[in-house]
Amino acid sequence: MPSLPTTTKQWVLSNPPTTKVILDGSETTFKLETASIPALKDGQVLVKPHYFSNDPAQRGWIQKGVDAERLYIPPVAQGAVMRSFAICEVLQSKAENLKEGQMVSAAAGWTEYAVMEAKDCNPVQADEQAGIKLTHFIGSIGAPGITAYWGLVNVAGTTKDDTVVVSGAAGATGSMVMQIAKHVLGCKKVIGIAGGEKKCKWVESLGADVCVDYKATNFKEQLWKATEGFVEVYFDNVGGEILDTMLKRIKRYGRIAACGSVATYNDPESLRLKNWFEVIANRIEIKGFIVLDAFFQGKGPAIIGALRNGVKDGKIKLTEEGETIVPTKFEDVPKTWTSLFEGGNQGKLVTELKA
Amino acid sequence: MPSLPTTTKQWVLSNPPTTKVILDGSETTFKLETASIPALKDGQVLVKPHYFSNDPAQRGWIQKGVDAERLYIPPVAQGAVMRSFAICEVLQSKAENLKEGQMVSAAAGWTEYAVMEAKDCNPVQADEQAGIKLTHFIGSIGAPGITAYWGLVNVAGTTKDDTVVVSGAAGATGSMVMQIAKHVLGCKKVIGIAGGEKKCKWVESLGADVCVDYKATNFKEQLWKATEGFVEVYFDNVGGEILDTMLKRIKRYGRIAACGSVATYNDPESLRLKNWFEVIANRIEIKGFIVLDAFFQGKGPAIIGALRNGVKDGKIKLTEEGETIVPTKFEDVPKTWTSLFEGGNQGKLVTELKA
Repeated sequence: MPSLPTTTKQWVLSNPPTTKVILDGSETTFKLETASIPALKDGQVLVKPHYFSNDPAQRGWIQKGVDAERLYIPPVAQGAVMRSFAICEVLQSKAENLKEGQMVSAAAGWTEYAVMEAKDCNPVQADEQAGIKLTHFIGSIGAPGITAYWGLVNVAGTTKDDTVVVSGAAGATGSMVMQIAKHVLGCKKVIGIAGGEKKCKWVESLGADVCVDYKATNFKEQLWKATEGFVEVYFDNVGGEILDTMLKRIKRYGRIAACGSVATYNDPESLRLKNWFEVIANRIEIKGFIVLDAFFQGKGPAIIGALRNGVKDGKIKLTEEGETIVPTKFEDVPKTWTSLFEGGNQGKLVTELKA
Repeated sequence: MPSLPTTTKQWVLSNPPTTKVILDGSETTFKLETASIPALKDGQVLVKPHYFSNDPAQRGWIQKGVDAERLYIPPVAQGAVMRSFAICEVLQSKAENLKEGQMVSAAAGWTEYAVMEAKDCNPVQADEQAGIKLTHFIGSIGAPGITAYWGLVNVAGTTKDDTVVVSGAAGATGSMVMQIAKHVLGCKKVIGIAGGEKKCKWVESLGADVCVDYKATNFKEQLWKATEGFVEVYFDNVGGEILDTMLKRIKRYGRIAACGSVATYNDPESLRLKNWFEVIANRIEIKGFIVLDAFFQGKGPAIIGALRNGVKDGKIKLTEEGETIVPTKFEDVPKTWTSLFEGGNQGKLVTELKA
């Protein structure tokens, strides 16, 4: 067995951003540091992240001036290691329930090595026969999948009688929303919105009745056609202009599950809802939500069960195309994350740490 | 009896506006015309409006390019008489249930005289002992009062355990929201937002625990103090910046009843919700609504009853200060209406037609 590391490189939050994340210069958002690794106490493990989860939500945790009281989890403090979910290997354990070599899912942060409480680590195991890889625990059957299910079923109350539109349809959450709506709930019609022909084709291959390309010059025309007669449910992952446009396409008494606003995280001032009057005139109901509520309300395990059954029954596909795995040097971890906001990924964007 | 009129002056919609309403020149929004009055058919009455109701909602009915399918009532067609609710006198009747001299509430429009179907006219009667004047039927115990009750109770589900903020608190609807929340529902705390010291004092005199002046330089500071610990319910009459600001003051799982957006009706592009992320992070529920739903769902009569009981029990005050009655020549009817958007009125803005 190689000797254990005594120091670790880590990315800390140096300058909380107000708009764009900056990756170099004196105002750089993150800074690379080296820290010593403390000795393990009882109940702790030393873990080595192999895969980082890249989530738009992380942007909200580092916003300058964010009010801790208003955020659903503590913001990342200036000077602290950037928070990130990760799939990690246990290198050393002083906890009874975890042993060396075991793989766990944990909020290790952007670090080469982390000392974690064992209770904050969830063992994960690939299942080749079922097609479940380790990375799926931060993707389709992890937080994005649970978010999709919770938002559709519990927040928007979606049933088979609904027509559903989902934006960010080729993203980690959106691609699951689409599959759950179409194949698990059996919704009447499922319409995706994604950027680019390739992504749209992929979304349709997963079961969307149609996927509209928001980068196309005739986007609005296509969307109007796809949503003829209007829709009951809009699952919003993107906010911004697409949310504004969708306000005109939601049926009277329709519902919006507000899950994310990735289009505006780097420029909050840009959310201009010029169609707000539609909310009033058509009695639209908008509900913001976050995935943690599924667990607060004790529904987490049941949803995970439903997702696994969906996979087992072939209703939810865990395909290669559902993940964009980016081999990344530790020095480039922030760069891979920021590509989320440029729409570069199809499905879950995973950072695979290069040795 | 004087002979009956054979012609009438009327204001028609000449140029549906996109932003500001224009009151003169070649692009004038409304045009004054003279039309002949047709003979009455069976079931019809000839009415003469004495008071016009001035409602922010009217702005929505004339927006250029408004999609009829998306509006809750037909938009006003170009060239048609501008729609307005009014308190009218029956001058002539060919209907059994209405007789000459009777007062009715009806959507007569901006006209000196109108031929109406009797079934579209609701008889109204002042009640001096109860302090109910004719104008209250287009105010406190009319649509604005019903809107206030419906929005608070049925849309936002407000109970005595809630702290409530209402914007446009000195307006026709807002002043009723405030009184119903405080005195009928017995809410824990009721906070008004209004423009100017005089209006704020009036709102407080009606029972608000505090009314914050949005024109004050320290508005935000005052609002933060008034909403310490955050609030469960926000009744939004104004949209715009105040809605955006309030997103930061709503408690986790709090509710917004979206009733109006008067701040943006003349400039829809101005609604910039830079705090939208609060909707997601704090799981805020926003429900748009209109007063007609109270009737569609059969709750209208019960609400009117509750309002009248509130008046009878002294919980709802029908004071002189609750109405801004503007004596107006017929030629100036549009001008009085547009003053709604400048915040000139306290309580219900009523146009009293000068002889």
